[in-house]
Amino acid sequence: MRKLNVAMIGGGFMGKAHSIAYAGMPMFFWPAPAIPQRKLVVDVNDELAQTAAARYGFESYATDWRRVMEDPSIDIVDIVTPNDSHAEIAIAAAKAGKHIICEKPLARTAEESKRMLDAVREAGVKHMVAFNYRRTPAIALAKKYIEEGAIGKILNFRGTYLQDWSADPASPLSWRFRKSVAGSGALGDIATHVIDIARYLAGEISEVMGMATTWIKERPVQSGGLDKLGTVKATGDVKKEAVDVDDEISTLIRFESGAVGSIEATRNAWGRNNFITFEIHGELGSIFFNYERRDELQVCFSNDPSDRRGFRTIYTGPAHPYGEALWPIPALGIGYTETKIVEAHDFISSIVNDTEVSPNFYDGYRIALISDAIIASSDSGKWTKITE
Amino acid sequence: MRKLNVAMIGGGFMGKAHSIAYAGMPMFFWPAPAIPQRKLVVDVNDELAQTAAARYGFESYATDWRRVMEDPSIDIVDIVTPNDSHAEIAIAAAKAGKHIICEKPLARTAEESKRMLDAVREAGVKHMVAFNYRRTPAIALAKKYIEEGAIGKILNFRGTYLQDWSADPASPLSWRFRKSVAGSGALGDIATHVIDIARYLAGEISEVMGMATTWIKERPVQSGGLDKLGTVKATGDVKKEAVDVDDEISTLIRFESGAVGSIEATRNAWGRNNFITFEIHGELGSIFFNYERRDELQVCFSNDPSDRRGFRTIYTGPAHPYGEALWPIPALGIGYTETKIVEAHDFISSIVNDTEVSPNFYDGYRIALISDAIIASSDSGKWTKITE
Amino acid sequence: MRKLNVAMIGGGFMGKAHSIAYAGMPMFFWPAPAIPQRKLVVDVNDELAQTAAARYGFESYATDWRRVMEDPSIDIVDIVTPNDSHAEIAIAAAKAGKHIICEKPLARTAEESKRMLDAVREAGVKHMVAFNYRRTPAIALAKKYIEEGAIGKILNFRGTYLQDWSADPASPLSWRFRKSVAGSGALGDIATHVIDIARYLAGEISEVMGMATTWIKERPVQSGGLDKLGTVKATGDVKKEAVDVDDEISTLIRFESGAVGSIEATRNAWGRNNFITFEIHGELGSIFFNYERRDELQVCFSNDPSDRRGFRTIYTGPAHPYGEALWPIPALGIGYTETKIVEAHDFISSIVNDTEVSPNFYDGYRIALISDAIIASSDSGKWTKITE
Amino acid sequence: MRKLNVAMIGGGFMGKAHSIAYAGMPMFFWPAPAIPQRKLVVDVNDELAQTAAARYGFESYATDWRRVMEDPSIDIVDIVTPNDSHAEIAIAAAKAGKHIICEKPLARTAEESKRMLDAVREAGVKHMVAFNYRRTPAIALAKKYIEEGAIGKILNFRGTYLQDWSADPASPLSWRFRKSVAGSGALGDIATHVIDIARYLAGEISEVMGMATTWIKERPVQSGGLDKLGTVKATGDVKKEAVDVDDEISTLIRFESGAVGSIEATRNAWGRNNFITFEIHGELGSIFFNYERRDELQVCFSNDPSDRRGFRTIYTGPAHPYGEALWPIPALGIGYTETKIVEAHDFISSIVNDTEVSPNFYDGYRIALISDAIIASSDSGKWTKITE
Repeated sequence: MRKLNVAMIGGGFMGKAHSIAYAGMPMFFWPAPAIPQRKLVVDVNDELAQTAAARYGFESYATDWRRVMEDPSIDIVDIVTPNDSHAEIAIAAAKAGKHIICEKPLARTAEESKRMLDAVREAGVKHMVAFNYRRTPAIALAKKYIEEGAIGKILNFRGTYLQDWSADPASPLSWRFRKSVAGSGALGDIATHVIDIARYLAGEISEVMGMATTWIKERPVQSGGLDKLGTVKATGDVKKEAVDVDDEISTLIRFESGAVGSIEATRNAWGRNNFITFEIHGELGSIFFNYERRDELQVCFSNDPSDRRGFRTIYTGPAHPYGEALWPIPALGIGYTETKIVEAHDFISSIVNDTEVSPNFYDGYRIALISDAIIASSDSGKWTKITE
Repeated sequence: MRKLNVAMIGGGFMGKAHSIAYAGMPMFFWPAPAIPQRKLVVDVNDELAQTAAARYGFESYATDWRRVMEDPSIDIVDIVTPNDSHAEIAIAAAKAGKHIICEKPLARTAEESKRMLDAVREAGVKHMVAFNYRRTPAIALAKKYIEEGAIGKILNFRGTYLQDWSADPASPLSWRFRKSVAGSGALGDIATHVIDIARYLAGEISEVMGMATTWIKERPVQSGGLDKLGTVKATGDVKKEAVDVDDEISTLIRFESGAVGSIEATRNAWGRNNFITFEIHGELGSIFFNYERRDELQVCFSNDPSDRRGFRTIYTGPAHPYGEALWPIPALGIGYTETKIVEAHDFISSIVNDTEVSPNFYDGYRIALISDAIIASSDSGKWTKITE
Repeated sequence: MRKLNVAMIGGGFMGKAHSIAYAGMPMFFWPAPAIPQRKLVVDVNDELAQTAAARYGFESYATDWRRVMEDPSIDIVDIVTPNDSHAEIAIAAAKAGKHIICEKPLARTAEESKRMLDAVREAGVKHMVAFNYRRTPAIALAKKYIEEGAIGKILNFRGTYLQDWSADPASPLSWRFRKSVAGSGALGDIATHVIDIARYLAGEISEVMGMATTWIKERPVQSGGLDKLGTVKATGDVKKEAVDVDDEISTLIRFESGAVGSIEATRNAWGRNNFITFEIHGELGSIFFNYERRDELQVCFSNDPSDRRGFRTIYTGPAHPYGEALWPIPALGIGYTETKIVEAHDFISSIVNDTEVSPNFYDGYRIALISDAIIASSDSGKWTKITE
Repeated sequence: MRKLNVAMIGGGFMGKAHSIAYAGMPMFFWPAPAIPQRKLVVDVNDELAQTAAARYGFESYATDWRRVMEDPSIDIVDIVTPNDSHAEIAIAAAKAGKHIICEKPLARTAEESKRMLDAVREAGVKHMVAFNYRRTPAIALAKKYIEEGAIGKILNFRGTYLQDWSADPASPLSWRFRKSVAGSGALGDIATHVIDIARYLAGEISEVMGMATTWIKERPVQSGGLDKLGTVKATGDVKKEAVDVDDEISTLIRFESGAVGSIEATRNAWGRNNFITFEIHGELGSIFFNYERRDELQVCFSNDPSDRRGFRTIYTGPAHPYGEALWPIPALGIGYTETKIVEAHDFISSIVNDTEVSPNFYDGYRIALISDAIIASSDSGKWTKITE
């Protein structure tokens, strides 16, 4: 069985998620398209890199990602660093002929994203951007229903991504709150997942109206480079600095198909944790999903008899997308791990079978265009068309 | 105990709701502020009016609402007719010195609403507009929490009103789909309830961005004047006419306080019936409500210990607003009737105690201004300020 | 239109519920089978009786229920007193040729219940016992599905009735905690509702295994005769007396059909308010209901395609039982009032049309037999057959 | 860092679950107590064993589990075979001085389980039985609340495990329906998980009343040895054989503490997939859990103010048990994998730190005693005490 050597750049929580995906993928998808080998991991210093190798099961480690590009044994570069380094690493990897999977958002801006897209296209390598949530079986089931025409022509897509890990002003100023590193705030970090899902399920977005807000205007400076995701609160006499990105974004949306919708994302929603929801109204039915209860998809078919019509709560399992590979009955439990295992599988399949995978850098670029348009619209107060 | 004589103009489903409210109010609120007497009901012809009197327990009936104004024994005029007659009846009633409760929306336009407001102010009568949903105990509980500061300064209000009774294109063209009668579609009929709730809970709205859509552009002409609410589908070779109102409305909203939000309403949401929801994010907590599960309010307090923090599902009962008057334990069951009983109580109290009740014609007028601005914004594609 | 004169014995919270049902019934069910006239109300003293008449809209009042039996104008006797007086009043009413509706449980014991049943049978009057919850539209819909064979042969019925209004030991010792008045505790007060639903949906019960518990063994003596349902807590130096009834009951059940099941009821379930639930597994499907979300019935049909199978959440409305009479769209709101309006309608229909209504005194007697058997089984530790 | 060599006996779906747990454990728990090495996997024939090694990442494979016992490099024996081989393998492993983790139920009977317990005690090795569900963070959180006294003395534990994967009579007769292999049916396979949770949270069970049923009395004989969990339905002219185990079990329970309860498990609950639920009523609060929504625990504290009391929906995350090790925010997603990773961690910790882990073979033996008593009670119709 073919093996593909992976070099992973970055060793934070996303490194953990990607590592277990590589380890677990062949266990779930068998026969596997190829066996990913955790060959080399890169982190910012020797100690962190060595630890990452031991912890995540990589054969070796390094502190300079450039070394990866020179190593001909590496097939895949996996980028799990903060957003500001995505472009440089990805372009170098493309030039070196590596297949690339890059964490989301693809980059800080559409311009950066476009350069990355150009690079992978020129190099002819496979590329993927890690909007993993669409690989939740229930979301893939929504896609299946839509493709089968089960809810008819889509009229409306209404999506949210609500969190509260940084709703407390004492939550530190990690890189996610710095425009120079992150590009944007709730928009790039979380709203882009919903934009990805919207495009996946309802088609291309043509025009947006945005309203961005920064509720918490300064936060305690964080010592160390780690992204603590709000679990450590600053106390005592702390130094604060300005937040220069949005922490809430509201939009109205028009799709190329004529459908309309809205996407809202905030990090200030006390009680919401990873509240990725969407509701789709079609001419023949509706679909509702909430990632916090991700084993379930709710769907209503208008052609059910009127005395038996209502949302069905479908627990995904063997009868649904990815179901044969995952667990033998529904509700044994889809976790974050499983979404990443499916993602790893589909990426590696695209390499082995020389096919396109989605979402790829083009999708990442489109999402960056939409993100930039949302900010522009928020600034101008005007509807803004998406143009490449 | 004082008695107040009621004349009700209109005998449709809303007539039923108001009638049981008058009958039931003293049973629930005791001692009652006054006992409403169902004195006279008016409907469009003799047969309908006679039936309405027998069915709804009125002492007498008439076919011309003008007769009511000449009858000095009538204290209260209750207007439950389609929207196009609200202004004429209400202005006449005000001139005749009657206290007025009028179904929502107050009128077809802000201009009509303003004339009604001017009339009741000039006459010095009590006036109320029947946005009953805010009298659901769980919504009143949300108000109480907000006033107590329990969720802090409000950042965001996100409301929906989703229905499906006319999602089928075979559903008839009742007056609710004719601009000349209704003024607007989903906007006036249902979105205004959410606008009322938004103002009630989050304060005055200063600016709106609207996107109106008419998905079903023609419907079967309906024989008879009844408002069938979609339960009777047209079949066979039916004549169709154009729908000239919206059936879906999406908005972004800015409040005077600086809070932001969105309100969406549609009649094309298969599987949603009377899906009035709102979620409010404050600096110190969040509130969620869904009228389809109206006995419950969900609230999250940020100052709960981190290992015990989460949305609390509060079932309203004796410990909550209106609870002493309603049922002795939570979840015995709040229905539409109970919201109307509370409304009748508060209106009659305002007469007896000579106090202002809310929502009144001024609130109705403000909501009409907001509605007109939403349509104007939808037409222009621009943010529109609310100005009297 | 025919009128039927009602005398109501008792003026507590159940008096309220029955009164609004009489007032509202013709408003909802039109043409009504007859118009109930609130003629006479009886309470324990002059002040209470006079207040009840004013509050509940009765024409006159009395303090001795025997007066009712001598009044030939009275057609219906409505018994809403504590359990210990049901038998005496009902037997007298039967002898006087009155039709009778009696609050549940029918009496304190099967023996008492049998005497009541014998009396109404001998008198040939109509009789009903007010297990109103089965008239919740969603429960009637469950019955319809079962009768249509939609879930096949029933295998299992699992019911609960959980409350917390007396979970606090400071909650007073109302008559509901005295065996001499109530007959039993959670069993008679709440479990009997679920037994009624079980018989209604799954057929006759043949054998029971019971386990009764009294967690709170004494409570503060309550001043005054009112049944406060736990809303007033005793404070300070209060006198306590023993509770001599169960406050929790667990059972296993065998039905005549061969189906099995369990019923559990407790007043010590913090956070549960009026948590009447049942889940039924049939060979071809399942049904779930929770009264706290009573507008909904959940049903799963096994013959749905495997990729679209799951519980459907049906919101009851015009397409479902009683729907034409109630509200024009689902989720406008079924409350306690509506269940009582349907009950009043069906009882009055049985009088006008000379038909049997269910649950009647025979059902009440069977439920009393089952209740007595549960207590006997709990005492003996043995399965106990139900025998008349 | 210390390494521990694992030999896994069996390569079915449980083999997958255990393998990803070994691979992922150090990624989540860092520093790990030791790094488990997937050394050797055993399956019934060469092809299956070779495939298991490649798929699950084991260094080598074998077809005779006895070989494992002779290999001194093996530290841990992991038994994931059908129930009838647990005792023989475990006793041999104990004699060989291996630490043992064994899938549940521990064995077919209490007698078998006792011999296993004696063997591990005599050998002084570490032992665990893989009732993994109690390691769901939300269940561990329930334990924490109980230990902190947050819900007071426990009055009632009500548990269910409902599934539908074999509700269809065409679902094949896998080993799970043969008493000679499985020992019992729904009881051993699924009810034991709830018994484990009941003992974990509410303490030792002293007495049971059981009612066992076999609804589907014969099933198609299955070709091949695989346990298909009902995903492949038999069609055409199939040979059927008798099912000699229960497919539904209902019980009443008494705990040593005086608490009471019930446990029910069935494989015939259409629409329920992995519906492990429990509700616990304590003197000061209640807890509810449903594994199908496993990221959540619901808890009600009676000492909340009466206007703010209700079930809190707690999404487990970093502030809760195992939270530091798992994902950085709640609701990223706990799946089956995560429960197995925690299990692997706690087992390996017990070896490294020479401590007892729970549930161990003693727990497995107690659960087997309870299971045997449930069957005995069902046969006799009498309450049955648990005696070693």
